[in-house]
Amino acid sequence: MCRYTANKSMDNCAFCNADGDFLIVPQTGRLWITTECGKLQISPGEIAVLPQGFRFAVDLPDGPSRGYVAEVFGTHFQLPDLGPIGANGLAAPRDFVVPTAWFEDSYRPDYVIIQKFGGELFTAKQEFSPFNVVAWHGNYAPYKYDLTTFCPFNTVLFDHGDPSINTVLTAPTDKPGVALLDFVIFPPRWLVAEHTFRPPYYHRNCMSEFMGLIYGGYEAKADGFLPGGASLHSCMTPHGPDTKTYEATIARGNEAGPFRISDTLAFMFESCLIPRICPWALESPFIDRDYYQCWIGLRSHFTHEGASAKDGDIQNGEKED
Amino acid sequence: MCRYTANKSMDNCAFCNADGDFLIVPQTGRLWITTECGKLQISPGEIAVLPQGFRFAVDLPDGPSRGYVAEVFGTHFQLPDLGPIGANGLAAPRDFVVPTAWFEDSYRPDYVIIQKFGGELFTAKQEFSPFNVVAWHGNYAPYKYDLTTFCPFNTVLFDHGDPSINTVLTAPTDKPGVALLDFVIFPPRWLVAEHTFRPPYYHRNCMSEFMGLIYGGYEAKADGFLPGGASLHSCMTPHGPDTKTYEATIARGNEAGPFRISDTLAFMFESCLIPRICPWALESPFIDRDYYQCWIGLRSHFTHEGASAKDGDIQNGEKED
Amino acid sequence: MCRYTANKSMDNCAFCNADGDFLIVPQTGRLWITTECGKLQISPGEIAVLPQGFRFAVDLPDGPSRGYVAEVFGTHFQLPDLGPIGANGLAAPRDFVVPTAWFEDSYRPDYVIIQKFGGELFTAKQEFSPFNVVAWHGNYAPYKYDLTTFCPFNTVLFDHGDPSINTVLTAPTDKPGVALLDFVIFPPRWLVAEHTFRPPYYHRNCMSEFMGLIYGGYEAKADGFLPGGASLHSCMTPHGPDTKTYEATIARGNEAGPFRISDTLAFMFESCLIPRICPWALESPFIDRDYYQCWIGLRSHFTHEGASAKDGDIQNGEKED
Amino acid sequence: MCRYTANKSMDNCAFCNADGDFLIVPQTGRLWITTECGKLQISPGEIAVLPQGFRFAVDLPDGPSRGYVAEVFGTHFQLPDLGPIGANGLAAPRDFVVPTAWFEDSYRPDYVIIQKFGGELFTAKQEFSPFNVVAWHGNYAPYKYDLTTFCPFNTVLFDHGDPSINTVLTAPTDKPGVALLDFVIFPPRWLVAEHTFRPPYYHRNCMSEFMGLIYGGYEAKADGFLPGGASLHSCMTPHGPDTKTYEATIARGNEAGPFRISDTLAFMFESCLIPRICPWALESPFIDRDYYQCWIGLRSHFTHEGASAKDGDIQNGEKED
Amino acid sequence: MCRYTANKSMDNCAFCNADGDFLIVPQTGRLWITTECGKLQISPGEIAVLPQGFRFAVDLPDGPSRGYVAEVFGTHFQLPDLGPIGANGLAAPRDFVVPTAWFEDSYRPDYVIIQKFGGELFTAKQEFSPFNVVAWHGNYAPYKYDLTTFCPFNTVLFDHGDPSINTVLTAPTDKPGVALLDFVIFPPRWLVAEHTFRPPYYHRNCMSEFMGLIYGGYEAKADGFLPGGASLHSCMTPHGPDTKTYEATIARGNEAGPFRISDTLAFMFESCLIPRICPWALESPFIDRDYYQCWIGLRSHFTHEGASAKDGDIQNGEKED
Amino acid sequence: MCRYTANKSMDNCAFCNADGDFLIVPQTGRLWITTECGKLQISPGEIAVLPQGFRFAVDLPDGPSRGYVAEVFGTHFQLPDLGPIGANGLAAPRDFVVPTAWFEDSYRPDYVIIQKFGGELFTAKQEFSPFNVVAWHGNYAPYKYDLTTFCPFNTVLFDHGDPSINTVLTAPTDKPGVALLDFVIFPPRWLVAEHTFRPPYYHRNCMSEFMGLIYGGYEAKADGFLPGGASLHSCMTPHGPDTKTYEATIARGNEAGPFRISDTLAFMFESCLIPRICPWALESPFIDRDYYQCWIGLRSHFTHEGASAKDGDIQNGEKED
Repeated sequence: MCRYTANKSMDNCAFCNADGDFLIVPQTGRLWITTECGKLQISPGEIAVLPQGFRFAVDLPDGPSRGYVAEVFGTHFQLPDLGPIGANGLAAPRDFVVPTAWFEDSYRPDYVIIQKFGGELFTAKQEFSPFNVVAWHGNYAPYKYDLTTFCPFNTVLFDHGDPSINTVLTAPTDKPGVALLDFVIFPPRWLVAEHTFRPPYYHRNCMSEFMGLIYGGYEAKADGFLPGGASLHSCMTPHGPDTKTYEATIARGNEAGPFRISDTLAFMFESCLIPRICPWALESPFIDRDYYQCWIGLRSHFTHEGASAKDGDIQNGEKED
Repeated sequence: MCRYTANKSMDNCAFCNADGDFLIVPQTGRLWITTECGKLQISPGEIAVLPQGFRFAVDLPDGPSRGYVAEVFGTHFQLPDLGPIGANGLAAPRDFVVPTAWFEDSYRPDYVIIQKFGGELFTAKQEFSPFNVVAWHGNYAPYKYDLTTFCPFNTVLFDHGDPSINTVLTAPTDKPGVALLDFVIFPPRWLVAEHTFRPPYYHRNCMSEFMGLIYGGYEAKADGFLPGGASLHSCMTPHGPDTKTYEATIARGNEAGPFRISDTLAFMFESCLIPRICPWALESPFIDRDYYQCWIGLRSHFTHEGASAKDGDIQNGEKED
Repeated sequence: MCRYTANKSMDNCAFCNADGDFLIVPQTGRLWITTECGKLQISPGEIAVLPQGFRFAVDLPDGPSRGYVAEVFGTHFQLPDLGPIGANGLAAPRDFVVPTAWFEDSYRPDYVIIQKFGGELFTAKQEFSPFNVVAWHGNYAPYKYDLTTFCPFNTVLFDHGDPSINTVLTAPTDKPGVALLDFVIFPPRWLVAEHTFRPPYYHRNCMSEFMGLIYGGYEAKADGFLPGGASLHSCMTPHGPDTKTYEATIARGNEAGPFRISDTLAFMFESCLIPRICPWALESPFIDRDYYQCWIGLRSHFTHEGASAKDGDIQNGEKED
Repeated sequence: MCRYTANKSMDNCAFCNADGDFLIVPQTGRLWITTECGKLQISPGEIAVLPQGFRFAVDLPDGPSRGYVAEVFGTHFQLPDLGPIGANGLAAPRDFVVPTAWFEDSYRPDYVIIQKFGGELFTAKQEFSPFNVVAWHGNYAPYKYDLTTFCPFNTVLFDHGDPSINTVLTAPTDKPGVALLDFVIFPPRWLVAEHTFRPPYYHRNCMSEFMGLIYGGYEAKADGFLPGGASLHSCMTPHGPDTKTYEATIARGNEAGPFRISDTLAFMFESCLIPRICPWALESPFIDRDYYQCWIGLRSHFTHEGASAKDGDIQNGEKED
Repeated sequence: MCRYTANKSMDNCAFCNADGDFLIVPQTGRLWITTECGKLQISPGEIAVLPQGFRFAVDLPDGPSRGYVAEVFGTHFQLPDLGPIGANGLAAPRDFVVPTAWFEDSYRPDYVIIQKFGGELFTAKQEFSPFNVVAWHGNYAPYKYDLTTFCPFNTVLFDHGDPSINTVLTAPTDKPGVALLDFVIFPPRWLVAEHTFRPPYYHRNCMSEFMGLIYGGYEAKADGFLPGGASLHSCMTPHGPDTKTYEATIARGNEAGPFRISDTLAFMFESCLIPRICPWALESPFIDRDYYQCWIGLRSHFTHEGASAKDGDIQNGEKED
Repeated sequence: MCRYTANKSMDNCAFCNADGDFLIVPQTGRLWITTECGKLQISPGEIAVLPQGFRFAVDLPDGPSRGYVAEVFGTHFQLPDLGPIGANGLAAPRDFVVPTAWFEDSYRPDYVIIQKFGGELFTAKQEFSPFNVVAWHGNYAPYKYDLTTFCPFNTVLFDHGDPSINTVLTAPTDKPGVALLDFVIFPPRWLVAEHTFRPPYYHRNCMSEFMGLIYGGYEAKADGFLPGGASLHSCMTPHGPDTKTYEATIARGNEAGPFRISDTLAFMFESCLIPRICPWALESPFIDRDYYQCWIGLRSHFTHEGASAKDGDIQNGEKED
């Protein structure tokens, strides 16, 4: 429907999502996005949110781009409630940037609007640019965010924080504490916890985790998780560091001092829903059918010394709701 | 299943909706509704609500009737919270009228109950009238409302109120501010706003709008929207006054004094959901395939004088959630 | 997938429900349940809850067992808010018992994990027992409850309590007062209400009621409802005591003194949703196609004396929301 | 200020409480109350609520009256949320009765209005009756309630319900579960709990309890608590049945069958605040300075048999918030 | 403490309110306010809010100024929830203006800070200007608002809106619907309601009303309420238009067409608390001891025709809470 | 009233606080506390909470003890909602320890109970030990907590966390986010933030801060703040590190690597209320009248380079509520 130019930019054509909001995470190549509120330029390491109902067109100044897009319905992204973190920390409101107002009042014959509605695409033709909005009120607008402005928190004496401590944006459900979609990042940061297994722990999650990597390596996968790749760990499927990472951690022992994780930017889309995987992905030649092998060879390091039940652990007793 | 008499009334037969509530908006012909709580007589200009689980039968004293019916599931209609309107305004609780208690204790061989359950119809036979309820407590009951008792509010100096200012009843969702179904009317009223474009403005809506007309004309459509007709503007589809209304407004200019809109009663069912249109409607000979032409010929009256971005409009800046 | 031994216990095999929680109501035969938190032994008259994501295996020390299982998604069971009942009554937190911690660190070749995920079953093989959890924090754990510890409340002068007064556990929805699933019991108790029709009253319910009987008889069905049986009364379908129970109650009159219902344990799964009945049940040879006959012969005992509408009953008047 | 007639009725004079609402509990003598909404006649065994701002006058057809009055500020009385009691029980909305509209349009020279405002009394004179209100909307109105229509609930197998189970009306604070004032009654009812100490238990309360007796005797005080009397047990002061009641209960043993408490009507004002006692009460000749003696001679019946700590009772363990 | 210059500006001195927020309503003379966030210039017809903890100094470019100040503790002013008014109306967020950042880095010997804390004034000396803040984040800042940007709503067919429809800002309490302080204005607007008594109605209020007049006349007081004056109507004290206004309204009759109220700006501070009046005000020579005379001579225009109680008005019936 | 033994323990005497809860922070000397639920032994570095209404007696095995006590009314301490910290971090429920059940059934002539009620002390005599409670249900109990089990979080890349990140327990008000009393600690931890001023920043607080020191030094006061001391910074009074700490930080520069703060335990009681200081404290010889001198000599290190207002900082613009 859209005529694409050589570099795959959108030409004489705009898109509009009537169903929900797009969260865009570019991994290679910049995006120049024209919206009814003005222009946003985002590079890998930045993200953009294009809310439901805005018309926009994307130009690719660097040629073909690649990245990740999440779509949410019936809600919008918001900053997480910071709880005891208080007034400052994680993503700050002031670092979310909206476009400078811009419009064009121009004749554009055969201009095409593609509207996504009810999961289908519809087109309409008009004779003028849709970017002719000359005034706008309120804070419902497209915006971008530079992930390097994120201020990470974590444990600073012992133990291991939940990934939720790195939440950038959350699309909530009606149930407190249950997210339709959390956007979480794993940025450069200091590790200082003492007597602690520092890599992401082995766990099952009541949410589904879709991970991607924007640049660098990922601390829990020594091999085989490359920028532009993605993994999906469904609800209640156990997972954790690969064997190589695990054994290296064990070998290092508990006495590791401060360590700075640098040159990495991984992220997670975490949802209370079970994502349906489309045939295009399931049939992709790039699917890693040997992924499970990253855990082959995991050995138990458990010893029975001192393994009696401690007071306060689960025993016959009272269950409070 | 029901044997209908010549005038299409329900005879020896009652209906029951086990799935949800009916909101009935007659447009021509009165309805005499017998319910387990008593009898309701409604005429065009009045509405009735028949809640989930009540058995009722409808007689048509004027012969065939015509109108609109909305059904809501999992919630009930309630008055909107009035906010700063305070204690009085819009629809008043005292104008919602329930039936006077009435019952019959009579033998009715082959009486048929039709129950709508899970979207399907089931029938059962019994030998007595279902309208044999001799006592009832509480305020879960059928009721009717006369739309002329609605007390409309609007702007009284400048600018243009949202249609929500005319909400009669709302069926809420769990999300504050998001309605499963708002029932909104456009009744006779004074227009006094100065320096303002008075007709309904051009907009896209995150809700879907189903409009109908009970009598008179509709202020935003000079032609082609007749009593008994209906229009549907889906989520994020732009719409507004037709070309004729728009040009007449422009011609009139900004200096219009007080004007009384009389002899009209339009309404809207507005929902956060996307309505699915049934084949009966899509294939109807009455469908207006030229509806879009009401906007053909719309001209831009925008001039570039003074069109710089004003302080306070959208610019690079902070986005609060 | 699981190899079952002669008595149908699970052997070298564990199950995990990634979709939701199981509420298990055994009716005959004990269950010895091994979980990652330890072992639970339940007998008929007790219930067990196995939350989403826990691996468990079931042994049947008495041979084949029989009972009822409910599954809830997206929420967990909790105690009902007691309202004016205050600090004590119905099910007490202290009577919900979690397992004593137990683990095995053993080699188990070809051990099979069956995971229910998205309504389908998946299997995985491993070489060790899954019951190797040596520490656990928090109160997310399997638990059991002995229904004889339930402290029932009811009317103690006149009138008839709602069944909700016997709620043991509730799985809430986001809407206050609307349960995804209420687990309600009808235990032994005193009936003392004066001038009152004491059996469960005739009614239609906006929820769907699935009833079962653990032992003894059920007060509202003189015949034909046996331990291990079940009935389903869908949303808005009228139901109540059978003819025999009704006539016996009428014959007894209003002057019945205190009466102790003993030796009975019926229960109800009550849901705001409409349960879909699987073909296995619809085609069962055990389905009771004559169930409706339990109400054949019901006679009206209504007399018109004094049957005028009382002040305060429904009349033309105000409807408050 | 008001001229009282021989029987102490208010003559040519009306009262208005600008500070809060009055809850009136007459104990002897009827009250004929004229309000701006009409007339209410209440007798002992009924209560009346006169909300903030209504003008009223009281006539005493039986001569001097006696009773109890509570005043609440900043909130109003409401029915308690019934919790699992469901739709029916305790006080029913339909039994709260408002006056039939009545007005007089008459010349009344030197009519006096006494207004309580900020804890002080102010007077104004006017020449007409204040009961000249010819129309009124809404449900903010004086009302009365007959305490015999209260439908009591309690335990019907074992154990002992909290007094809150007998709440008629509650004036809430902003904190859920904490009442500014609960109005609780102890009406005739059946006691059937088995193996249970049936009188009100010994306890300390985080609320303050003011008790009164309308007629009959009170089950926990064998002597010395007469109709028209009152007791006050402040926050955290231990109290319970008197020695005589206690020893009689012990003598009776655990095997008591159903017992009907009749001919009694006690009540309680229970508040989260500490009531300040006015000098008039502290210096009254009717104060019972020997009240504490009702507990003299209480003996311990505790035996050490089986008194080891049970699993599940308090031990070193986890405290959930 | 502060040295005032001839025109009473604050010189080498700043004030800080540690207790709460100031809402300033100038009535004559402009205020140039320097704050730690920058400078605000306000004129009569504008308001300013100086939140708790900000240091500020005020200059008076026009010489002595006069106006009204309200102080709120423990909460802040916010926009009212608009309810059915929807997205636009009353005061718009975009019209609240914060200062452009400004600072001075200067030596100021003997500079005095006056801090209001716990209702008392404390002073401290320092050697530098307090207006040395070079960066600030967040939206906790002083702001001003031009009252002519307020978009008034009201009834546009019949009946009379509550004053709350003109709420500019509200300082809420913890109780929904109950304001610590509402700031309400009565701006120029069209009156169009038919068959309606248009002036503010006679009423008693559960809140206390402090009114002031910024310029022009006030529609309900034909005489004696001048710009710069104030009236206080305490909780439950009846009040309404003066006799002259009332008689003029009656004379005009029900058939008045559209009428534009122009050249007026009255306002109200409305609080759920009872304001304590300071001796300075009670002993002022400017107190109007004859205020009550504005209502002398009010006559009843009530006729008994048709004055029977209508169905639906208050009668014996059900009281819902 | 209590007879104290040589080491000041309570002998034949128990205390009960009917008004509120005590939070006890010992600084020197252990406390052996006997309660109705059993015995708690706490040492400096641990805290105890004794809730409203429990009787307790304190023995001092080490002789005189010293420490801090806070009392809260109308609410109880709870764990803070962790927000994005998720499931683990700060104080864990499992580390709050309640006593093992213990009772004595003994004759104790002239035993004295001292009850604090309404801010006054009352005494009563009895002949038996009050620690005769043989059973107890629920989780309303005294408890203790070892502050070394606290798992601190903080920034791990740049910037500076709010003190609220170290909240151990909070006593909430009805207003979300506003604490009656927060108990906050400053425990040993790693500092790793880059390009950041690491000591507690200079600020004014809308809460009042009472600080104490249990052992070691406090990072923001190089001199003069000793274990057992206390400081109070009232609402909106500016404060921060002393001059010596500030200059040392500036001298160290921005390039400081990871640094472990060890051997320190400071804490804060932070309240939304203004504490009233009793004469005993104001007239103490230990009051530090030169405290303000710790800030004498603070110099400005601000340079004007680059100090223009940045886009996104406060300017004329929109204020969102």
